[in-house]
Amino acid sequence: MEKMQVYELLSDIKNGQISFDEAMLKLKLSPYSDLGYAKIDNHRGIRQGTHEVIFGQGKTVEQIVGIVKKMLENERKNILITRLDGEKAAQVQKSVDFEYNDVAHLGIVARSESTAAKTSYIVVATGGTSDIPIAEEAAVTAEVLGSRVERVYDVGVAGIHRLLDKTKLLMGAKAIVAVAGMEGALASVIGGLVDCPVIAVPTSVGYGASFGGVAALLSMLNSCSSGVSVVNIDNGFGGGFLAHKINRIG
Amino acid sequence: MEKMQVYELLSDIKNGQISFDEAMLKLKLSPYSDLGYAKIDNHRGIRQGTHEVIFGQGKTVEQIVGIVKKMLENERKNILITRLDGEKAAQVQKSVDFEYNDVAHLGIVARSESTAAKTSYIVVATGGTSDIPIAEEAAVTAEVLGSRVERVYDVGVAGIHRLLDKTKLLMGAKAIVAVAGMEGALASVIGGLVDCPVIAVPTSVGYGASFGGVAALLSMLNSCSSGVSVVNIDNGFGGGFLAHKINRIG
Amino acid sequence: MEKMQVYELLSDIKNGQISFDEAMLKLKLSPYSDLGYAKIDNHRGIRQGTHEVIFGQGKTVEQIVGIVKKMLENERKNILITRLDGEKAAQVQKSVDFEYNDVAHLGIVARSESTAAKTSYIVVATGGTSDIPIAEEAAVTAEVLGSRVERVYDVGVAGIHRLLDKTKLLMGAKAIVAVAGMEGALASVIGGLVDCPVIAVPTSVGYGASFGGVAALLSMLNSCSSGVSVVNIDNGFGGGFLAHKINRIG
Amino acid sequence: MEKMQVYELLSDIKNGQISFDEAMLKLKLSPYSDLGYAKIDNHRGIRQGTHEVIFGQGKTVEQIVGIVKKMLENERKNILITRLDGEKAAQVQKSVDFEYNDVAHLGIVARSESTAAKTSYIVVATGGTSDIPIAEEAAVTAEVLGSRVERVYDVGVAGIHRLLDKTKLLMGAKAIVAVAGMEGALASVIGGLVDCPVIAVPTSVGYGASFGGVAALLSMLNSCSSGVSVVNIDNGFGGGFLAHKINRIG
Amino acid sequence: MEKMQVYELLSDIKNGQISFDEAMLKLKLSPYSDLGYAKIDNHRGIRQGTHEVIFGQGKTVEQIVGIVKKMLENERKNILITRLDGEKAAQVQKSVDFEYNDVAHLGIVARSESTAAKTSYIVVATGGTSDIPIAEEAAVTAEVLGSRVERVYDVGVAGIHRLLDKTKLLMGAKAIVAVAGMEGALASVIGGLVDCPVIAVPTSVGYGASFGGVAALLSMLNSCSSGVSVVNIDNGFGGGFLAHKINRIG
Amino acid sequence: MEKMQVYELLSDIKNGQISFDEAMLKLKLSPYSDLGYAKIDNHRGIRQGTHEVIFGQGKTVEQIVGIVKKMLENERKNILITRLDGEKAAQVQKSVDFEYNDVAHLGIVARSESTAAKTSYIVVATGGTSDIPIAEEAAVTAEVLGSRVERVYDVGVAGIHRLLDKTKLLMGAKAIVAVAGMEGALASVIGGLVDCPVIAVPTSVGYGASFGGVAALLSMLNSCSSGVSVVNIDNGFGGGFLAHKINRIG
Amino acid sequence: MEKMQVYELLSDIKNGQISFDEAMLKLKLSPYSDLGYAKIDNHRGIRQGTHEVIFGQGKTVEQIVGIVKKMLENERKNILITRLDGEKAAQVQKSVDFEYNDVAHLGIVARSESTAAKTSYIVVATGGTSDIPIAEEAAVTAEVLGSRVERVYDVGVAGIHRLLDKTKLLMGAKAIVAVAGMEGALASVIGGLVDCPVIAVPTSVGYGASFGGVAALLSMLNSCSSGVSVVNIDNGFGGGFLAHKINRIG
Amino acid sequence: MEKMQVYELLSDIKNGQISFDEAMLKLKLSPYSDLGYAKIDNHRGIRQGTHEVIFGQGKTVEQIVGIVKKMLENERKNILITRLDGEKAAQVQKSVDFEYNDVAHLGIVARSESTAAKTSYIVVATGGTSDIPIAEEAAVTAEVLGSRVERVYDVGVAGIHRLLDKTKLLMGAKAIVAVAGMEGALASVIGGLVDCPVIAVPTSVGYGASFGGVAALLSMLNSCSSGVSVVNIDNGFGGGFLAHKINRIG
Repeated sequence: MEKMQVYELLSDIKNGQISFDEAMLKLKLSPYSDLGYAKIDNHRGIRQGTHEVIFGQGKTVEQIVGIVKKMLENERKNILITRLDGEKAAQVQKSVDFEYNDVAHLGIVARSESTAAKTSYIVVATGGTSDIPIAEEAAVTAEVLGSRVERVYDVGVAGIHRLLDKTKLLMGAKAIVAVAGMEGALASVIGGLVDCPVIAVPTSVGYGASFGGVAALLSMLNSCSSGVSVVNIDNGFGGGFLAHKINRIG
Repeated sequence: MEKMQVYELLSDIKNGQISFDEAMLKLKLSPYSDLGYAKIDNHRGIRQGTHEVIFGQGKTVEQIVGIVKKMLENERKNILITRLDGEKAAQVQKSVDFEYNDVAHLGIVARSESTAAKTSYIVVATGGTSDIPIAEEAAVTAEVLGSRVERVYDVGVAGIHRLLDKTKLLMGAKAIVAVAGMEGALASVIGGLVDCPVIAVPTSVGYGASFGGVAALLSMLNSCSSGVSVVNIDNGFGGGFLAHKINRIG
Repeated sequence: MEKMQVYELLSDIKNGQISFDEAMLKLKLSPYSDLGYAKIDNHRGIRQGTHEVIFGQGKTVEQIVGIVKKMLENERKNILITRLDGEKAAQVQKSVDFEYNDVAHLGIVARSESTAAKTSYIVVATGGTSDIPIAEEAAVTAEVLGSRVERVYDVGVAGIHRLLDKTKLLMGAKAIVAVAGMEGALASVIGGLVDCPVIAVPTSVGYGASFGGVAALLSMLNSCSSGVSVVNIDNGFGGGFLAHKINRIG
Repeated sequence: MEKMQVYELLSDIKNGQISFDEAMLKLKLSPYSDLGYAKIDNHRGIRQGTHEVIFGQGKTVEQIVGIVKKMLENERKNILITRLDGEKAAQVQKSVDFEYNDVAHLGIVARSESTAAKTSYIVVATGGTSDIPIAEEAAVTAEVLGSRVERVYDVGVAGIHRLLDKTKLLMGAKAIVAVAGMEGALASVIGGLVDCPVIAVPTSVGYGASFGGVAALLSMLNSCSSGVSVVNIDNGFGGGFLAHKINRIG
Repeated sequence: MEKMQVYELLSDIKNGQISFDEAMLKLKLSPYSDLGYAKIDNHRGIRQGTHEVIFGQGKTVEQIVGIVKKMLENERKNILITRLDGEKAAQVQKSVDFEYNDVAHLGIVARSESTAAKTSYIVVATGGTSDIPIAEEAAVTAEVLGSRVERVYDVGVAGIHRLLDKTKLLMGAKAIVAVAGMEGALASVIGGLVDCPVIAVPTSVGYGASFGGVAALLSMLNSCSSGVSVVNIDNGFGGGFLAHKINRIG
Repeated sequence: MEKMQVYELLSDIKNGQISFDEAMLKLKLSPYSDLGYAKIDNHRGIRQGTHEVIFGQGKTVEQIVGIVKKMLENERKNILITRLDGEKAAQVQKSVDFEYNDVAHLGIVARSESTAAKTSYIVVATGGTSDIPIAEEAAVTAEVLGSRVERVYDVGVAGIHRLLDKTKLLMGAKAIVAVAGMEGALASVIGGLVDCPVIAVPTSVGYGASFGGVAALLSMLNSCSSGVSVVNIDNGFGGGFLAHKINRIG
Repeated sequence: MEKMQVYELLSDIKNGQISFDEAMLKLKLSPYSDLGYAKIDNHRGIRQGTHEVIFGQGKTVEQIVGIVKKMLENERKNILITRLDGEKAAQVQKSVDFEYNDVAHLGIVARSESTAAKTSYIVVATGGTSDIPIAEEAAVTAEVLGSRVERVYDVGVAGIHRLLDKTKLLMGAKAIVAVAGMEGALASVIGGLVDCPVIAVPTSVGYGASFGGVAALLSMLNSCSSGVSVVNIDNGFGGGFLAHKINRIG
Repeated sequence: MEKMQVYELLSDIKNGQISFDEAMLKLKLSPYSDLGYAKIDNHRGIRQGTHEVIFGQGKTVEQIVGIVKKMLENERKNILITRLDGEKAAQVQKSVDFEYNDVAHLGIVARSESTAAKTSYIVVATGGTSDIPIAEEAAVTAEVLGSRVERVYDVGVAGIHRLLDKTKLLMGAKAIVAVAGMEGALASVIGGLVDCPVIAVPTSVGYGASFGGVAALLSMLNSCSSGVSVVNIDNGFGGGFLAHKINRIG
């Protein structure tokens, strides 16, 4: 069932031409699969255009394997497992075959070949070298979802010419993910240079009064540049996901 | 000078075909007007597609008037003055003619007629009635910039059917600004229902452990729904500006 | 000595018909057993209808064993040891025979058979899979104390239909324990759907700006739904205990 | 339409015997009244057994009057307006006739006569004299909703005998609202004395390191007594509402 | 040189009868021993009546040994090494002979026999069993300095009769050290019962919103009982030291 | 009834030679006077050697007058009303005759002549001139309770010789109240110079990152000098009360 | 007495060639003037090369006047009164003649003519127009102390070219005071461009999650540029004072 | 190319006598070396007079080795690697030859011989022995950069005479780095004694309410001594770097 069909169906419900229950029947798919410890949202792809992502942290190996297998039964593709540390990944690997990115701590199950030419792109930028793992979480997420990603790493404001050197690349992006710890000024400076939405991802890189990323977070929330919004500390996935969403619109 | 021309010019600079100074000359406009107390960024429209906005809070009446007059000299349109309280607005009114919105605390100078038909739209939603002033700041900002805005007010999660009743309207939006104080759950629930980017605006509505909007801010940053990003507490302007940016892409 | 008798005794004290010391004598039980490192409250069952619970964290194996043995001497039943990690549990196991729940990290000593039919029930709900250990602490606590518990896990607000699907079960409960980390919106949404008291248990599930459960805690304290109260972060025991108390009233 | 009928109706929906829309029709009442700035939840009484309460703070006089009038049209009784300061109350008084309690800052519209004998009761206790306004918000709320309330004021732990003197009254309650600022120890001490649920209401009474009620809030969240749960700082309404809910169960 | 002689010497300096340098000469002892990494304050005993204490945490084994040896050279007695974990203690043991208390994590070097009869005493009380290590740090410190100590452990406010049972012992003390984590109400309740100064020691016992002792700390700072003062979280040494100082005055 | 008699009475209760109720009768004084909004603790003088103090902030004029009158009926002397602002003081003055100190914001009712020669004394010191109001609250409190007070004001560490110049006076004190805002270093420096207990009172003097006294509070809690304890921010009363208690012991 | 003479004198004291008291006599000036409420440090000019500055906030008009008069008696010049609001300034004006700067809220008493040519200079820069009052406090302070000051205002990172346009001026400075609120990124960007020390002054300009300047403060403390240090929020005086100190060295 | 030549070049650019690109060509050195994961700033030495420093924490061994090798190719000297723990240092050692300081956790690559006589010096002082690692980071940094450093360790305010004994040494310094944890009062006391800039480095030494260095940080930011500025918690490098900068000016 294509998304447009679903859309019409939902319209019919709202217009009173069909009851909610009838609509559900038509969808021929239980709205969620109940595993007891997890209720997999089978309609998210319909509502949101992308599948449910598995947040790996805090789940046991058994739970992750169970969820993945159920999703594979439903013929899902491009299943992401985020915040999956290497040790747990090795355990999951025993039961399910998947690709593991050990910089981004991401697992990718049943990755589909992407064939379309992509002219539009997003940029993932970092303030420093230490922010790269979070940036890669963003970049790989967007790539798996189908976006072209340009990486611009280690362009923090302490050497502003390194960033200015990339102005043209930045200006051509559909959306930019600005990943930075410490004082997090990168997002504001980029926000002042470009036309597109900037998604700021504060990282926990730093020490002392960085308070695990709080300094960068506050800095980004208070950006004097318009067009900057913020996701949770170290939430590379969220940044990449949102940038892809915006990229897909254009 | 059109934006595309500027783009080519910038490309030439990067390619070494023209020096930065020559380029500046061609732009025939000083990159900023220096008033001493303010340096008005004349190129922001070129870089960002929208003009510089005047942050009214903390500026004297004289400073606001001075900046507006200089911008009018440069033939700017749709100049926004944000966070302008009623008393100061009345003072500014004596020297400059402008439209004042006393719910959103926004001044609008030299508003241009918008003629184009707008089929795409953004939604501005609030959790409660008390969030409306911030929501209006978002809505009016987006409208002045040229977006069509649908308002969905007082649909907080304590009576979830009020929100679900608007599902179709929400699903059709290009971007949604979710404005809420207290526990700020609105952004997550909307984020779980829709396909488009959700910009969460925490408000300082609440008391006690809302800590002036911190509870809503943290709630929104920790949203379990993907596709939600956050701006500063009470930053209606930022939410509306960003939603318009995304809307314009599509 | 039955609770009612005790109640009369206490009335007599207040009315001046008997002195406090005489009353104590009648109770034929020292008000507490002094182990030096612990003073076991022998009257708590009388005052509160449930026995003292052993908070396992921060106590040595020797102290836990000592307290349990003294309580067994006093013929206690259904002794709960909370926050008992697996390693310490194994050590305690060497001296005392008890049931250990390794998901909830709970030890149960001398569990009594529950025979009464239970028509009324409480619900324990979680936002995600990672909240289950805390939820189980709540559920098992209530079950040991004598309540019937219905589990509704992984019904977070990002997929609101999973929760709405359980509306009837929720509406029939005497009390609901809503266990959630991250943005903690679950409590508010449930609070808006049901008639009974909702006890919100924030969990430390999350990262970054969840600040170890603070985001969920603040969200729950600021709930826009009436009838929601909150216990400490990760305090599954407290949630289950209180839900049972309310269930027992009805 | 009685609540039981509604319950059956809802069961039918879940069982698929009737569509949601048909059910709505039967309810013969739009699920909410849309005033633009507010969406009054007409089904809350059905879902929750009590009406929607108007949170006065942050609403304009016009909005409050508009909401009250619409509720009166729907023949509501016992409408509460919380956090209504004296000045605004006087303004509202010009358009709507209602009872104003200037200690609790509560407005009560269309109070119905309560005729039933009430044997069960709740206790509202305070640590000090300065906590009384919040305590009265709790007490009056519970009384308007139909509960009998016993007040035990100024029994803070600095003079523990004042509290112990009320032990019998405390022990007979169905629920206790413990209202205290500063170190908030009252909730724990009461929690150790009684059998029933204790709802702790931290107040902003204090100065310096009380941080506007945070000290009391944290103290109450960390109560070593089981059976204590907490609502927001200064949320007397929430405490009284919840205590009434529990009282009504018994 | 006795303390009184020193006192006269200091008076002479102030009265101008002798220069500071001459006085120093008379003291026949360099005011501090410089080890490079540490400057041992040889006059502290003169100024403060007790010797400098070695804060073990953060010092290397070599540094601790070096400081102890220099102090022994100067014929010091009763040298305390605080916050000395077991592993480091074992290392220090290889070079210096001393008594190690593994509950209080205290090392005591060159303990002198205490012969005087002690009628006055201080009380060290705890809220729970888990607070005992900090309480022992307080108790042992005071004992080494020469005070008689009565221990009253596990008398938290959840079972207030356990504390009231010790009222006479508490009322007879010269000073009381109240050690408690979680909500820290113990200090206030004791403060309301007794005549003597109460030194509150918050502990990091607890979890979640105890924030490593912050809840107890704030609770104690906001005590509604007069006569309560507070030292740092887990600072058992500070509590015992101060209680001894007050005890010695009487 | 003298305090010693009371003490014996209490001993008898503990020994079982007399019941609690009989004892109460002998005391011939109701343990508290119940005014509804306040329960005046009539036994505090017996338990604590000083009367209950009226915390003026947050109480209405009527409540303060009512409490004072009841205390005067019971022939109390030296009644302190703390945190009483000038306006409220003028209102109370209309009903009760009392002395008002407008620097310390203290009211003193029925002050008794102090006749005894006082050789021992306490010192109240401040870091700066702005700390004087809080220091006076401490000093006047101690004086009313019967202590001799020496004031040493504006001796902050930025000019350490001003403090060192007072070394002898400091060394002769029974207790020192160190009142300081900003960085609060005064307490540590004094603590390193003297033999007696130092009670640190952080003040809210400062701006920016002083956070209303938090910087000073933390500084004082972390004092590297032993013998320093801390009371709440701006709690001059608490500091003076405790210093007097210690002074009275010696 | 010149500073060098004083220096020799101090050397003699340290070398034992002269006693401290003799040295004091030679200085022929009491080390401080004691006004009771204030102890004016007469040696600060000797120790620090600049006079004591009067912190106006929190002092009464009488105290300020008293201190100024005493300083004038001692023939001081260039006396600064900081944080002096307009109303208080007008009151002080009645008793003492002085220059008042109503942007910087600074009073300057007995300003001396500065005659020396100044080739070296410091720069005071601001992120926005609203930061100017704090920047002026810095600039005027440095000017009064004798430094040449170049002002570069409203060059925040949202329009980075405005700042880059001033690169040469920045590079020639001996020290730079970077004044910024909101995200405070200015300090880092400047720090990356220049050779000299940068003193960052966070301001309380902003709203919401700027938390009164905390966001800027944290951002500046975490600067990824070396050579940046920070003073208190809104401490323009401190920034200007320190920049002058550094300028004077060169 | 000498720094002065560069300076002229930059002037030419500003005066329009040469384009930015031509200038870059003349510099005959790419402005940065791009390693993908890092962009080494080759012009920092020109702009700032010191080379880029490698922040070791959060970088992999491969990244550190890669950056060092590229810098050596460019014939850099005195390359600092900060926050390099021992284990990682050993790994790096395998690929690059360098000097490792295991107290300061600093790596120094290609240290050049310093031949110039240095009469001016900076002082690095610590409050306690535990602060030494951070102090050594500061001291070694300044020494590698070319400054003479005097160490004054363990002179905390609890024994103020230890510090006063070093007054002359302190007074002769060009800049002082004051390193302290706990209450951080050292910076204020030194700031009150000397003429030169004081750079305060708060350390995370302490426990409980030191909150990992926050207490010291706040204390230092609120210093009542003028001329004190602050760097991040544990940022010994930053303190030493800045002190060297100031020293080099004189």
